[in-house]
Amino acid sequence: MDNNSPNIMALAPNTSNKRETVCIFGTGDFGRALGHKMIQSGYPVVYGSRSTQISNLIPKDAEVLSHAEAAQKAAIIIIAIQRQHYNFLTPLAETLRGKVLVDISNNLKLNQYPESNAEYLAQLLPGSRVVKAFNTVSAWALQSGTLDASRQVFVCGDDVEAKQMVMNIVRALGLTPIDKGTLLAAQEIENYPLQLFPMWKFPIFLSLGLSAFFFCYCLALDVIHTYVYEKNDFSFFIAVTIPNRVCPVMALVLLALVYLPGIFAAIIQLYRGTKYRRFPDWLDKWMLCRKQLGLIALAFAFLHVLFTLVFPLRSFISWRTRTQTVSQALNNRTEPLNNTNAWLSDSYLALGILGFFLFFLLGITSLPSVSNNVNWREFRFVQSKLGYLALILCTAHTMVYGGKWFLNPAAYKWYLPDIYMLSLVIPCAVLVVKFVLILPCIDKPLTQIRQGWERNPKHSE
Amino acid sequence: MDNNSPNIMALAPNTSNKRETVCIFGTGDFGRALGHKMIQSGYPVVYGSRSTQISNLIPKDAEVLSHAEAAQKAAIIIIAIQRQHYNFLTPLAETLRGKVLVDISNNLKLNQYPESNAEYLAQLLPGSRVVKAFNTVSAWALQSGTLDASRQVFVCGDDVEAKQMVMNIVRALGLTPIDKGTLLAAQEIENYPLQLFPMWKFPIFLSLGLSAFFFCYCLALDVIHTYVYEKNDFSFFIAVTIPNRVCPVMALVLLALVYLPGIFAAIIQLYRGTKYRRFPDWLDKWMLCRKQLGLIALAFAFLHVLFTLVFPLRSFISWRTRTQTVSQALNNRTEPLNNTNAWLSDSYLALGILGFFLFFLLGITSLPSVSNNVNWREFRFVQSKLGYLALILCTAHTMVYGGKWFLNPAAYKWYLPDIYMLSLVIPCAVLVVKFVLILPCIDKPLTQIRQGWERNPKHSE
Amino acid sequence: MDNNSPNIMALAPNTSNKRETVCIFGTGDFGRALGHKMIQSGYPVVYGSRSTQISNLIPKDAEVLSHAEAAQKAAIIIIAIQRQHYNFLTPLAETLRGKVLVDISNNLKLNQYPESNAEYLAQLLPGSRVVKAFNTVSAWALQSGTLDASRQVFVCGDDVEAKQMVMNIVRALGLTPIDKGTLLAAQEIENYPLQLFPMWKFPIFLSLGLSAFFFCYCLALDVIHTYVYEKNDFSFFIAVTIPNRVCPVMALVLLALVYLPGIFAAIIQLYRGTKYRRFPDWLDKWMLCRKQLGLIALAFAFLHVLFTLVFPLRSFISWRTRTQTVSQALNNRTEPLNNTNAWLSDSYLALGILGFFLFFLLGITSLPSVSNNVNWREFRFVQSKLGYLALILCTAHTMVYGGKWFLNPAAYKWYLPDIYMLSLVIPCAVLVVKFVLILPCIDKPLTQIRQGWERNPKHSE
Repeated sequence: MDNNSPNIMALAPNTSNKRETVCIFGTGDFGRALGHKMIQSGYPVVYGSRSTQISNLIPKDAEVLSHAEAAQKAAIIIIAIQRQHYNFLTPLAETLRGKVLVDISNNLKLNQYPESNAEYLAQLLPGSRVVKAFNTVSAWALQSGTLDASRQVFVCGDDVEAKQMVMNIVRALGLTPIDKGTLLAAQEIENYPLQLFPMWKFPIFLSLGLSAFFFCYCLALDVIHTYVYEKNDFSFFIAVTIPNRVCPVMALVLLALVYLPGIFAAIIQLYRGTKYRRFPDWLDKWMLCRKQLGLIALAFAFLHVLFTLVFPLRSFISWRTRTQTVSQALNNRTEPLNNTNAWLSDSYLALGILGFFLFFLLGITSLPSVSNNVNWREFRFVQSKLGYLALILCTAHTMVYGGKWFLNPAAYKWYLPDIYMLSLVIPCAVLVVKFVLILPCIDKPLTQIRQGWERNPKHSE
Repeated sequence: MDNNSPNIMALAPNTSNKRETVCIFGTGDFGRALGHKMIQSGYPVVYGSRSTQISNLIPKDAEVLSHAEAAQKAAIIIIAIQRQHYNFLTPLAETLRGKVLVDISNNLKLNQYPESNAEYLAQLLPGSRVVKAFNTVSAWALQSGTLDASRQVFVCGDDVEAKQMVMNIVRALGLTPIDKGTLLAAQEIENYPLQLFPMWKFPIFLSLGLSAFFFCYCLALDVIHTYVYEKNDFSFFIAVTIPNRVCPVMALVLLALVYLPGIFAAIIQLYRGTKYRRFPDWLDKWMLCRKQLGLIALAFAFLHVLFTLVFPLRSFISWRTRTQTVSQALNNRTEPLNNTNAWLSDSYLALGILGFFLFFLLGITSLPSVSNNVNWREFRFVQSKLGYLALILCTAHTMVYGGKWFLNPAAYKWYLPDIYMLSLVIPCAVLVVKFVLILPCIDKPLTQIRQGWERNPKHSE
Repeated sequence: MDNNSPNIMALAPNTSNKRETVCIFGTGDFGRALGHKMIQSGYPVVYGSRSTQISNLIPKDAEVLSHAEAAQKAAIIIIAIQRQHYNFLTPLAETLRGKVLVDISNNLKLNQYPESNAEYLAQLLPGSRVVKAFNTVSAWALQSGTLDASRQVFVCGDDVEAKQMVMNIVRALGLTPIDKGTLLAAQEIENYPLQLFPMWKFPIFLSLGLSAFFFCYCLALDVIHTYVYEKNDFSFFIAVTIPNRVCPVMALVLLALVYLPGIFAAIIQLYRGTKYRRFPDWLDKWMLCRKQLGLIALAFAFLHVLFTLVFPLRSFISWRTRTQTVSQALNNRTEPLNNTNAWLSDSYLALGILGFFLFFLLGITSLPSVSNNVNWREFRFVQSKLGYLALILCTAHTMVYGGKWFLNPAAYKWYLPDIYMLSLVIPCAVLVVKFVLILPCIDKPLTQIRQGWERNPKHSE
């Protein structure tokens, strides 16, 4: 390796001393913001513009030339113009041959055009080397220097050398380039900044809908029923008591909904006898948002813990305790310890704590930096084994909590069951079916199917 | 840089328009799953198989040819066959010359063969360019599209261009390639999916063993002793009271065990007068699992916090409070505020809260994404300074809690000390020795040794 | 792509079988530690030293030669000597031509020299290929094998091939190379290990100062005032009561200080009518430490939650409850439920819980691994929308808490307001101004300005 031959890959031997000139086509907001930032980072910047008279919006240290002149001054040209004006570049095709063109454009809607802007640019100017970059950065953030959010800049392009040159600029601006491969990734990169939590929409709307239903249900049974039949105004239950009934119910139901699609998938595979056919669309979508459902369930569980722990601080609870104690003292009565109650209350609390603890662990392992550090086997162990254990503990917690009221007619106001009973339906169903599925006589064929075996290979397609 | 010369590194100038054909040798489960996924991502797939008659297990859009014919159709060949059948490839050596062979195989045991499968393949076919990839991905996850776990695909290979081509495919499938360097990394990559939390085994078994011991100890002193001598059935202590005695003890002991090996290391270095000799094996291993020990300690501390905070909600505690208040009321007695008790209870709680808070901070900084953003100096500051502060606070918390019972004979049931006394042994020892080690007369030679100085250079090896 | 042509980029075709020799100039601590580690990883190591007699500090398996001889044996030379001795390398320029020189040096102060050590080395030896690496790793960590902290090694250099060779070594030692681009990044990489939480300094000193002030303020009003005028010794309030008054106040004030600079920035932009002029320096710095301020505020909120939840466990609180109940029983009085109090207490708790929950969510999204996975739009949604919602909830929580004492003269001890009133000043100001800023008549020009429009383009520079 003692070769002194010139290194073909040495991108810019002189970059160690000074930066190369960068040309920017377009003097719009983003073009100016990027120019400002580049000048700050030591790059000479030349703008290509229709009117070459110096506009005072443009950074002072930048030169402004016609498009053709500006393009000749630099190896890298940043195309800071709208896609609909790209065709004005075609006359410049000869000047732009071999140049690195950086497409930074964004669209207004997801998949607005059949092909990505960068691919369209590459088709217009087949002789130039197109790189997609910078579209995920906000002009406002570049301008104000407050890049609190992601410093990642997705870069893609067919020409590796051109991509390297652009990635060097990205690094020089204090950002982190992420290589996303060839221009085929451009569509995805252009869609990226338009998204607003796409995977979260369905889980969040589902949770809001369910919470509203359970809230009204509780309001009817706990506040309105009491007011109608007992003339007691417990409207303040709206603040803490009812939220603390809705949160645990939501947490348990959503946690069960995380494991339900896996159950359906297993049943469908057993029925079909093959894994090589696609699941129905609704099941596919459901499986893809399990992580989000689980995290929302964890949020409800977290709120439930906080709401429960503040109980002793509530004015209502201390009034109730005081009243009970005073009446007991006034009746001159001493009460022995009820061992059954002590057992029930303690085991209900302990089950809840352990369930929440496991649930919290599951949440931590779904942090990207943690899940990137575990392999597939470890991830399945945590999410499947620990997840089911958490579901079992939380279901048991709910059962022990309400156990003694199950057969008590007083628990059925207006002939409706209490919500903790409703909340047990899905978890119990999931656990029962899962228990059946792990019986050896059913688990064995399922494992075979998942390893590629087919019951009726002839009919599989 | 205004060169129009053809770019040597341009890997596949035509990939911007269509994907290149990929060949897969082997029609087993993983080969089929990968083929399905590749066809979905727009790659033409051709299978190389012994029997060229079309099997209906294979994706409809894929071609099936003989191995030699299939290999000629593609530049990249995925070897989806078992290592023990690799030698059937030797007759194809001429066809495979210069091709990129992707080894995706896994073994059943760690380090099953002397060399990795990928290196073995490279030895069998010296003319081809072997890349290791995809072995960390699960066929089931590829098939069902639910890649919840890590999307990272480790890639290694001696040929940079070949590696780039494989990494492009990885990206096209929606996965994240991680370059692990040359084929020397293949052994590690092949072992990766077989691991099940290797660093966690010892800490978890140690914690389980210690917890079981402390649980039985508490059971004997708190439940059985009370039952035998006072005829009180406090069996429900098993649910909350005893766990809440075991958890803090475990947290404190494990936290001290995190700092103990550092103390041993310092003593060994001081005794030897050099840092250039390896520590004994047990100490090396212990030092490598400090992070895991610390995180398990944090889990116990977290459980301790939850168990403590639910105390006011327990049926037993509210019964006890009620009974005390009623008896006080019946005896017509008002009780003045005991200032010492108020001080003890409040400072014990405050120490615990601050200790837990620092402990929690330490836990957050050990998240991979956080610790990657701190430099060595910052990490040492947090883990050493804040860690010792947390240990001091937690030890003080335990001492204040049990302070007044230390010399009280009633605290020694069956002549055994309470577990909080046992729990103080290791932390106090660590703190005392650490205090000695930071005395200037001892700290100075230790710092010199750690900077490379040796007391007896002649005898150091 | 069926070419058999030799691959130009194939860095070291023989590395698949054995590691290449690495030369280390300098036998100081770090040189030895690195040599040890490299020998463990299978690299033949040769030391270049002034005295070629074998020192027993050097790893046994390493060779020791003169600098010139050693350099000839390897393609990669690690320069483990101080910058001030670099000029002794100039006579070796011919031998070092084309070699990869790895600069691992660190300075003692930030920006100690005008150019980075690596750039200085590259200037001294223009024929060689300089790569900066390894300076962020601790010799002690390499030696003891306990790389708990970041395993990242920042690498930069102008020669891509040389950088690849060094990155392969980094990977072989079990570390993760991070490509930081050309040698221009060397200055930053050399400064990196010298930093001790540079962004945290101001926020932490501000918090300490403010906390100390609020602590003394509370001490005067709650302990000293009570002692002077009521002769009650409540000195134990120092442990829990006063911290639990300071923490929420700090959390609220710091959270408001996170949003205050954004308000100032908007006002400045409205006044100037342009976004193309830099903010004053103090505002720039303030905006850059918003994340840190927010996280410290979250830490105070977390402590507030813990301190609040342990209230029922305090000896003082249970004494107070008992005394109240006993006196009520002795007076033979039953007390009706005060509905207003129940509403106030419950809504105050519910607001606090929801505010803390949102605050906690904000904290999670500021974890690097989470914020890297959200785009700019999502980040702004969370930090701006959810952040303001959290501020509103926390302000309302504080207002409801103290609401009824506002106009009560008893709340003004020594004519000073209670600290919860002080704490409301900044949050209320922020919320009021923010409300004004989102009125359409003000929001519209502001949005235009942020999109690049200018009121007086002539005077903008």
